[in-house]
Amino acid sequence: MTDTINTAVETSAADVVADLTTEEKASLTSGADFWTTKSVDRVGLPSILLTDGPHGVRLQRADSDHLGIGDSVPATCFPPAVALGSSFDPELLERVGTALGEEAQAEGVGVLLGPGINIKRSPLCGRNFEYLSEDPIVSGVLGSALVRGLQSQGVGASLKHFAANNQEADRMRVSADIDERPLREIYLRGFQRVVEDEQPWTVMCSYNRLNGVYTSEDPWLLTKVLRDEWGFEGLVVSDWGAVNHRVTGLVAGLDLEMPASAGRTDAQLVAAVQDGTLDEAALDLAALRNVELVQKAVRNARADATYDVDTHHALAREVAAASIVLLKNDGVLPLAADASVAVIGELARTPRYQGAGSSQINPTKLDNALDEIRVLASTEVAFAAGYGDDGSSSDELTAEAVAAASAASTVLLFLGVPAAQESEGFDRDDLELPAAQLELLDAVLAVNANVVVVLSNGGVVRLSGFADRVPAIVEGWLLGQAGGGAVADVLYGVVNPSGRLTETIPVRLADSPAYLDFPGEHSHVRYGEGLFVGYRWYDARDLEVTYPFGHGLSYTSFEYADAAATASAEGIAVRVTVTNTGDRDGAEIVQVYSSVEGSSVVRAPRELKGFAKVALAAGESREVEVLLRRKDLAHWDTRVDEWVVEGGTYTVSIGSSSRDIRTTATVGVEGDAVQAPLSMNSSIGELIAHPVAGPIIMQAFTGGVEGDGGANPAGAIMADPSMFKMMASFPIGRLASFPGMPVTMDQVERLIAASNGQDA
Amino acid sequence: MTDTINTAVETSAADVVADLTTEEKASLTSGADFWTTKSVDRVGLPSILLTDGPHGVRLQRADSDHLGIGDSVPATCFPPAVALGSSFDPELLERVGTALGEEAQAEGVGVLLGPGINIKRSPLCGRNFEYLSEDPIVSGVLGSALVRGLQSQGVGASLKHFAANNQEADRMRVSADIDERPLREIYLRGFQRVVEDEQPWTVMCSYNRLNGVYTSEDPWLLTKVLRDEWGFEGLVVSDWGAVNHRVTGLVAGLDLEMPASAGRTDAQLVAAVQDGTLDEAALDLAALRNVELVQKAVRNARADATYDVDTHHALAREVAAASIVLLKNDGVLPLAADASVAVIGELARTPRYQGAGSSQINPTKLDNALDEIRVLASTEVAFAAGYGDDGSSSDELTAEAVAAASAASTVLLFLGVPAAQESEGFDRDDLELPAAQLELLDAVLAVNANVVVVLSNGGVVRLSGFADRVPAIVEGWLLGQAGGGAVADVLYGVVNPSGRLTETIPVRLADSPAYLDFPGEHSHVRYGEGLFVGYRWYDARDLEVTYPFGHGLSYTSFEYADAAATASAEGIAVRVTVTNTGDRDGAEIVQVYSSVEGSSVVRAPRELKGFAKVALAAGESREVEVLLRRKDLAHWDTRVDEWVVEGGTYTVSIGSSSRDIRTTATVGVEGDAVQAPLSMNSSIGELIAHPVAGPIIMQAFTGGVEGDGGANPAGAIMADPSMFKMMASFPIGRLASFPGMPVTMDQVERLIAASNGQDA
Repeated sequence: MTDTINTAVETSAADVVADLTTEEKASLTSGADFWTTKSVDRVGLPSILLTDGPHGVRLQRADSDHLGIGDSVPATCFPPAVALGSSFDPELLERVGTALGEEAQAEGVGVLLGPGINIKRSPLCGRNFEYLSEDPIVSGVLGSALVRGLQSQGVGASLKHFAANNQEADRMRVSADIDERPLREIYLRGFQRVVEDEQPWTVMCSYNRLNGVYTSEDPWLLTKVLRDEWGFEGLVVSDWGAVNHRVTGLVAGLDLEMPASAGRTDAQLVAAVQDGTLDEAALDLAALRNVELVQKAVRNARADATYDVDTHHALAREVAAASIVLLKNDGVLPLAADASVAVIGELARTPRYQGAGSSQINPTKLDNALDEIRVLASTEVAFAAGYGDDGSSSDELTAEAVAAASAASTVLLFLGVPAAQESEGFDRDDLELPAAQLELLDAVLAVNANVVVVLSNGGVVRLSGFADRVPAIVEGWLLGQAGGGAVADVLYGVVNPSGRLTETIPVRLADSPAYLDFPGEHSHVRYGEGLFVGYRWYDARDLEVTYPFGHGLSYTSFEYADAAATASAEGIAVRVTVTNTGDRDGAEIVQVYSSVEGSSVVRAPRELKGFAKVALAAGESREVEVLLRRKDLAHWDTRVDEWVVEGGTYTVSIGSSSRDIRTTATVGVEGDAVQAPLSMNSSIGELIAHPVAGPIIMQAFTGGVEGDGGANPAGAIMADPSMFKMMASFPIGRLASFPGMPVTMDQVERLIAASNGQDA
Repeated sequence: MTDTINTAVETSAADVVADLTTEEKASLTSGADFWTTKSVDRVGLPSILLTDGPHGVRLQRADSDHLGIGDSVPATCFPPAVALGSSFDPELLERVGTALGEEAQAEGVGVLLGPGINIKRSPLCGRNFEYLSEDPIVSGVLGSALVRGLQSQGVGASLKHFAANNQEADRMRVSADIDERPLREIYLRGFQRVVEDEQPWTVMCSYNRLNGVYTSEDPWLLTKVLRDEWGFEGLVVSDWGAVNHRVTGLVAGLDLEMPASAGRTDAQLVAAVQDGTLDEAALDLAALRNVELVQKAVRNARADATYDVDTHHALAREVAAASIVLLKNDGVLPLAADASVAVIGELARTPRYQGAGSSQINPTKLDNALDEIRVLASTEVAFAAGYGDDGSSSDELTAEAVAAASAASTVLLFLGVPAAQESEGFDRDDLELPAAQLELLDAVLAVNANVVVVLSNGGVVRLSGFADRVPAIVEGWLLGQAGGGAVADVLYGVVNPSGRLTETIPVRLADSPAYLDFPGEHSHVRYGEGLFVGYRWYDARDLEVTYPFGHGLSYTSFEYADAAATASAEGIAVRVTVTNTGDRDGAEIVQVYSSVEGSSVVRAPRELKGFAKVALAAGESREVEVLLRRKDLAHWDTRVDEWVVEGGTYTVSIGSSSRDIRTTATVGVEGDAVQAPLSMNSSIGELIAHPVAGPIIMQAFTGGVEGDGGANPAGAIMADPSMFKMMASFPIGRLASFPGMPVTMDQVERLIAASNGQDA
């Protein structure tokens, strides 16, 4: 915060704006520099500070370079979203959000730029480590928790990147060309949930275009959908450098351009007001939202805020442990404290704990798995690097690793994607681990089959090359600064793993839904897979996967029983009794998928609609209730451009992963009433199905009809099932050109008007 | 033809039109009844007759019903397109076209409604039996041959259904939503070839919409593309009932509405001219094209034309034999005349020889396979029906079949899709043969493993359930009236099979490219697979198939050698020496696929660009030349909206199927010069790659630059490969908002102007 006497903070925002000149209002709508908004000293309006997140507070040091790529103030590096998501635990993420808010307060930060909740459309997206899931419900529920926690501390969130920013290639220009249903049901659904439930202070528009229009200047996206439909009350800020045309953006609903334009685009706004091409009311509105944001930030600022580094480090360890996914375990884990263990892999000693780019945090501390394993082990733990920092190996490194592996009962082999391959700004080329690491794995396996693979990666990697040759695989993602301890906790059973995959691990990249449409060409990318993103694709095409969405093992086991589903105005309440049938305490992620029997629209075989994390002591049994919210059951009906819940029999499939369904229940759900009006383009089949028109049209086509004066050739057609099928698809209006039809176009027009409830 | 004195036929068409009233011109642009155009007796302009094709002349009997569903005059039923295509033989198809023209002349038909060359996008499309291939080159080459033959007899073709009519579901309304590249390169390419090479007298617009616009009223499709780009000089006729809005259609380029509108829409045209909403010149143009068509038909009519039924039946047999695809043969075929054979399956006695709907021909004769087998066999041939006409079986029918199978050395088992499942007007639900037939197959196999399956089907069926359990499979499609003899000829080796698949036979329907996007919903279908139609999809996703595109066996064997490719202005001339290495005469379909090393655009791994059928006596060797036409090498460049040949190294893969490549050659091809102009939205990477701007921008970003007055933070960024990758994607214009950039926007604007060759 500045030292200005904040007189403008005590006044109503509208009064402040009324006092400002056009130039001052324009100046408020772009940044002062990389990280701050502009003050208006004349009226006592201070500037506020926005900094990168999302998994930590990245406050640029004052003496760093102009571009903000340099050093930042130390902050807790929590696990990035790829890990957080895998916890499937909104309470835990709310605590992370709260901790982020405490740190932001301590550093004087008004808005933390996160969370990022874009859908992981392709496993290649370079920024997937910053995103939560391939599923919109997971993204929406967990994104909401982060915002809730952060904003509980009086720090604003910036929900990003709005919207359809699902790749890094050509991200500043590429148009994500998406049909309305997948756009609404997959790519916007999570944003809608967070906005409606949590009112983030800001939403950050993305770099890319959506169906040909820059999101930074899309009135449909920034105003119609975001504000008019979802009721967003906050401010829209541009991603850094996302503004294409300033005036167009402001009119569309972009309130704040970041970073600074050195007055250039502010002058464009002023000129546009002066020459009448920009209504000053639009500028007033953007200025108002900026003033409101500053007021909120200043009023909520706690100048004396501090946070406890150790407490936050402990939280980072807790959440990291909850984020680890035990992909495979043939009984080798957990390790006994006195197990004979060799740790192999430089990543155990030099962890990859976050991704590269704008989200990079300067951590307060940094644990590594090797040290933490040695803390938990009661015997000596051998170590061999196996490969270097850059992922390459050598004969010597391999020989050391093989020797260490030979001498131990169990090998903990740390593999992962090199840092240089995963970053904001570009996408990966493949899903492969470095060849040198895979060769190391083979060399180790040749002398010791008891290999636990521990992975470090921001996006999924192909495991089909060795998953059946090792007894255990621990997916460690990027786990933040305390990830080393978390890995040790899981390996030694201090923590019973409960993380689950929020994205499918495919057998091959070539199986993935966006494979042939990623990253597009000539600044267009067609989302050709439509609704079938992630598990929806693999399930609909019945493709084998290495590990399915929602998969993750525990050191104990769970049984499901007594599933029941009841429908109400709120949605479908699902109850199921879950029992910990093993001898360890543990937690289960109960997942509830829905499907609709004989649905009239295209759907994936199963769609996640709710989930719950349930901690159960060994032997404990509990009834779990999961509400599938009615609005989450709706699909976007392209006939009427509305969310519509289809009536019918819903099957809820309850299980431990998308392909490990343990029990199901069915329930009747009353649908929303949608009757698309009839027209001359309605098919004969649609007329026949209509309650008013149906009987009349059937009579006309199968009986005699006045004015026809004789034979009714249509009768013979309607009597032949195959001909009937062909005729049913004819628009009624087209029959005008067929001689001998049993109805006149005048009669049809009157019938349609009557059926639509108009006077005939 | 009418008996009117055709005075208007002797005059120039323009003079005729100049003489007509507005009402008369309007009347010419719609039909008189189901099958004829309107005459204008006042000026001596007769009407002409159009009848359904495409694989025979379907001339409605005068005493048939109004709708034209009833009986038609006998005509030779040649094999439908599904079979014709499999011959891969343009000379043969030209002979079929010629024969169709002779029959049309004999019946007084001016225009035969065909060929249909729509792409087989999904194997489920109900009308696939009327189409040639999943590949546009095959469709275009063979479609051209049919038009060439037909029009050589003075009978007009009607190239249909223009365009993107790839399903029957909701065909009257559905919008095929297709991106520009697949639309141009897959769905329009065949039409373009036929129009440019053969000038069909008419093109028939389809029922459906294309990207939201009815093809019957799409000025882009009917005028810009068809006439302005491709140079079409003929008439556009509507599919029967395809007109949505008459005036809009006429303006867009639709010249003739069929069938009759009883004067209703003619009056709309007159009214529109009178109230000034329709420029009379547009009506003049449509009337002119109608007069020209009538003149062409009348001038070319041969009142005394006849044809020889037996000769055409023999041709139908020849082409049917050339269309049969021997999918598998473990040595059981060909049969010796004295082989002990049991024929099983009602389809052997009661053939399915064409599909249902408007193309159904009343044949002059009808052979069946059972009788023809008995002609060629020197011993008694047992027969058991196995199942009834409707595809159902019974214990008794099965028992008879099993008994017959037990008593024979070889079983010829005829299986196929029941007629009721394959028709114009609706699509199939699956690719399955009837369950009763598959049970019959199992029962027969249980007593005799030596089973040759002979198939009758209009669209591909799933064979993966039994392909590995039988020694031979003969794909007999729908083979027209002489198909029975053709099947016998192939089974007994009278004809050495040479037919090839023009569509892939997938392992499962769920593997097929359009599986999740077919047939769409709410009157929209997204072609989400884009360019990857047919084999392009299976190859790009590396999916196993049961039989690949281009596959088909022979009773002899062929070797390929000495491949060479040379580039010229015409394209790539490919030469390869093919040798018949077996002891029987036979014919090989030499297929040439292309690919481009390191292509800058999305491409399938291999694309068919040319093919040749080569007849070789046993032991004979011949050099075959196939020209890959330069225009067929081009892709549609969405930056400039033009066909562009990419420069670079082309690999031509020459083989016996899309997955049986025998030899390759590479050749350098000079590309078309395309330099998209630079703009403020050009990326830094694109500026760096530009011959003029590149060196200057590199200097600015890595060295000092005047006016910067000191440090250049961009230098550090450009030196870091990972940061460079990120920065290279930034549009140059966006840098305005980043403080400290080494160039001003004014400098950039001048640089761009200079690079684009404008004065700075």
